[in-house]
Amino acid sequence: MEFKHPLDYIFHPTSIGVAGVSNDSANIGQMLLLPLLASGFGGQVYPLNPKQDEVLGMKCYASLNNIPGSVDYLIVSIPAQLTPKLLEDCVAKGVKVVTLFTAGFSESDDAGGKWLETQLGQITRCSGMRILGPNCLGIYCPTSGLSFGPDFPGESGPVGFISQSGGNTHYMIQAAATRGVYFSKVISYGNACDINESELLDYFTHDPETKIITAYIEGTKDGARFFKVLNDAVKAKPVIIFKGGYTEAGMAGAASHTGALAGSEAVWDGLFKQTGAIRAYSLDELIDIALPFLYMSPPQGKNVGIIGLGGGASVQAADECTTAGLSVPPLPQEIRGILKQFTTSAGNMFRNPVDTQSFFIGPQQFTETARTVANWEGIDLLIFHISPDALVAPGMRQNEVKSWIEIVIEVAKQCSKPAAIVLHSFSGAKSWQLLSVWQEQCHEAGLATFPTVKRAANAISKFIQYHHLERNGQKS
Amino acid sequence: MEFKHPLDYIFHPTSIGVAGVSNDSANIGQMLLLPLLASGFGGQVYPLNPKQDEVLGMKCYASLNNIPGSVDYLIVSIPAQLTPKLLEDCVAKGVKVVTLFTAGFSESDDAGGKWLETQLGQITRCSGMRILGPNCLGIYCPTSGLSFGPDFPGESGPVGFISQSGGNTHYMIQAAATRGVYFSKVISYGNACDINESELLDYFTHDPETKIITAYIEGTKDGARFFKVLNDAVKAKPVIIFKGGYTEAGMAGAASHTGALAGSEAVWDGLFKQTGAIRAYSLDELIDIALPFLYMSPPQGKNVGIIGLGGGASVQAADECTTAGLSVPPLPQEIRGILKQFTTSAGNMFRNPVDTQSFFIGPQQFTETARTVANWEGIDLLIFHISPDALVAPGMRQNEVKSWIEIVIEVAKQCSKPAAIVLHSFSGAKSWQLLSVWQEQCHEAGLATFPTVKRAANAISKFIQYHHLERNGQKS
Repeated sequence: MEFKHPLDYIFHPTSIGVAGVSNDSANIGQMLLLPLLASGFGGQVYPLNPKQDEVLGMKCYASLNNIPGSVDYLIVSIPAQLTPKLLEDCVAKGVKVVTLFTAGFSESDDAGGKWLETQLGQITRCSGMRILGPNCLGIYCPTSGLSFGPDFPGESGPVGFISQSGGNTHYMIQAAATRGVYFSKVISYGNACDINESELLDYFTHDPETKIITAYIEGTKDGARFFKVLNDAVKAKPVIIFKGGYTEAGMAGAASHTGALAGSEAVWDGLFKQTGAIRAYSLDELIDIALPFLYMSPPQGKNVGIIGLGGGASVQAADECTTAGLSVPPLPQEIRGILKQFTTSAGNMFRNPVDTQSFFIGPQQFTETARTVANWEGIDLLIFHISPDALVAPGMRQNEVKSWIEIVIEVAKQCSKPAAIVLHSFSGAKSWQLLSVWQEQCHEAGLATFPTVKRAANAISKFIQYHHLERNGQKS
Repeated sequence: MEFKHPLDYIFHPTSIGVAGVSNDSANIGQMLLLPLLASGFGGQVYPLNPKQDEVLGMKCYASLNNIPGSVDYLIVSIPAQLTPKLLEDCVAKGVKVVTLFTAGFSESDDAGGKWLETQLGQITRCSGMRILGPNCLGIYCPTSGLSFGPDFPGESGPVGFISQSGGNTHYMIQAAATRGVYFSKVISYGNACDINESELLDYFTHDPETKIITAYIEGTKDGARFFKVLNDAVKAKPVIIFKGGYTEAGMAGAASHTGALAGSEAVWDGLFKQTGAIRAYSLDELIDIALPFLYMSPPQGKNVGIIGLGGGASVQAADECTTAGLSVPPLPQEIRGILKQFTTSAGNMFRNPVDTQSFFIGPQQFTETARTVANWEGIDLLIFHISPDALVAPGMRQNEVKSWIEIVIEVAKQCSKPAAIVLHSFSGAKSWQLLSVWQEQCHEAGLATFPTVKRAANAISKFIQYHHLERNGQKS
């Protein structure tokens, strides 16, 4: 029999209540109810509000007592001072888990909020009922139809994400989708008065649907436990964490955001080094680093072959790869000689980076150029960089440009080494559409895309370092 | 009488020839000819090609001799080995300046190219005729209708840009326009066999149309002269330079790109420190740093008030401002007390960063929040950060969202302190359009926009540092 983590049931409710919902389109309860109705949740959904008979054409219940069936999961958006009474009702009704969107608890700077949060714990302590939040958005789980955003993808993926910030889950879910990254489960857990980062991390460690663990964490109340859980998680799967609050001002901000005990930067820095968890400094970097784990096989070393268009862009690519910790070995003269068969010497660079007009000469010439570089034993991986703007600029026709990405994809996939694609664009009105199409074509072909060489090199370098530590058994 | 720099005439030709042009739409000569026809250049334009009678419906000349009138400026795209003969014709015809798009000179790794480049100098030495390039794109000057890109703006602005890379000028001109930055003159100067970075920098120092000097430089052949010219330039105007090739691989790349003697990183680092030129590490950063010079008055100090939406985004903003060298002072209790009059305590942050739902409550509430923060004596500047995605996400209707940027603009403009606006977006298909509109509205209102707080803080920090050095007379 398959192992079920004790927390697994919170992702599989059969009935959901939403408390504090009204017909006003600016009502938060309604904003949390609508995604459930749209995302294909198969069970019962019950709106709750003592002042409404009907919400969005659905029967609205005055209290939990009035609901005929059971309620597994309750989403709550009512004023903070009313939550203790509602939680008592939840315990009586046998609700299994409650998400408190409601804020105004330990994160606020008045003593009343902190006291109120301790009350929540007292009410639920012996009931077995679990609380997510307060001050959070709850659960997004595409396979069970749980969602809290109107534009979240229905597509599921192998990445798990926990976040102390609700806004960050919104950004992450949508931004990741544009990069070809999809989620098994996302949990916005806010102040963590009950279910916390350690328990969720432990869940992901054992969740068969989650292959890569990502997190936005502002602080932890139990450092020793978190260290232990993180250590176990890293042994099982790649773990990438964006730690919010690494400066004094950021830590103070975290305290006023989620009441987090941010912990000193030295402690967190040590935690990353000791466990082997990978550190990110933004959500975009979290996504960047997840990409090679999803789309690339591990390179044997850090020697990168850079192939693209533009001399200045090539020089910059060499600088940025080097700075990120990759190596850009010069191609031997015999390899350069072969490359010159596929394009003229004038206006091209053959040393590595390779700035090659063979791109314009023909698919055959470009393919042979890339193959020659890839097959040289001094190269462990390839970065292709192309700008839709640069291609559009010299007057190339749209349909020609479109077909070029197909050639790059074909070449990258046929290469004997792991490859990534950088689509560097200033995203002007004209190039944005083309860029989106190109990105999607790459993702569908199983290739990671990055907006700059700098970001690609940074992510790939951390990916290589992870596998290097793993190979050497240096992960604690 | 107004001072005219000896180089000024190259920006004001009355007649232009384009050599090596044909009717093939992939022909480079045609790509260089078309922008001139489209950009409103008022003088004569002569296509040259011995094999064509007519190009794009215009009479095509077999040689310079056949052209009836004078030719001030010749743009050349013919094979390298044919250029010495053409340059002799140019001298005979009295051409004043030649742009050699043609590559295959000192940047190529065979001796023939290097020898050929020295020939160019010998031909023109005593003639007074000047050469831009080889291996370059030439001049973009909107006021005289000179252009080398089909999508370049006709709008002129106060920024001068010189670039050793042609591709980088393409990117820069178009990317800058999306950020509200326009150019007096842009010169792609390639291998710099004659007109070089020092002479162009000296030109910009004296050009009344140029208020801010920006440059992409891979190397200089005359370090002593460059140092002197740069020193004078920095005394006159802000100078921001992106130095390509700051790692070994990058320097080697620069040599194979433009034959540049990149010079050691230590020398360049010293050059930046001694002259007070501001250093950038990408074209995007060049644009970022130019923005506060164009759109902001200098803040009195580095204390930033951060106002926006999203707790996680606020924590990150505090971290990133601090890391960039700005300070995020906590607001005193009495100021926090005032802020709480405009929104509920729950789910908001009042410490600085201010994460304020007053944004949703009403224009009056948001305006008063921002004014209260701005008016506190502990604040020197403001950063507003907003995400179109976050606003669209909770189900707000498009027209409501649109009006919000107008409120932010009004508030930012009325503030007693310099302000910048961060529009952080993952640029999904839905938000991209909205984002472009918002950006333009901000620029039209005279406000700088940045895609992340990190980039805003970095640019503003360098801007403050520049004015600090200037006030203290520490610029050499």
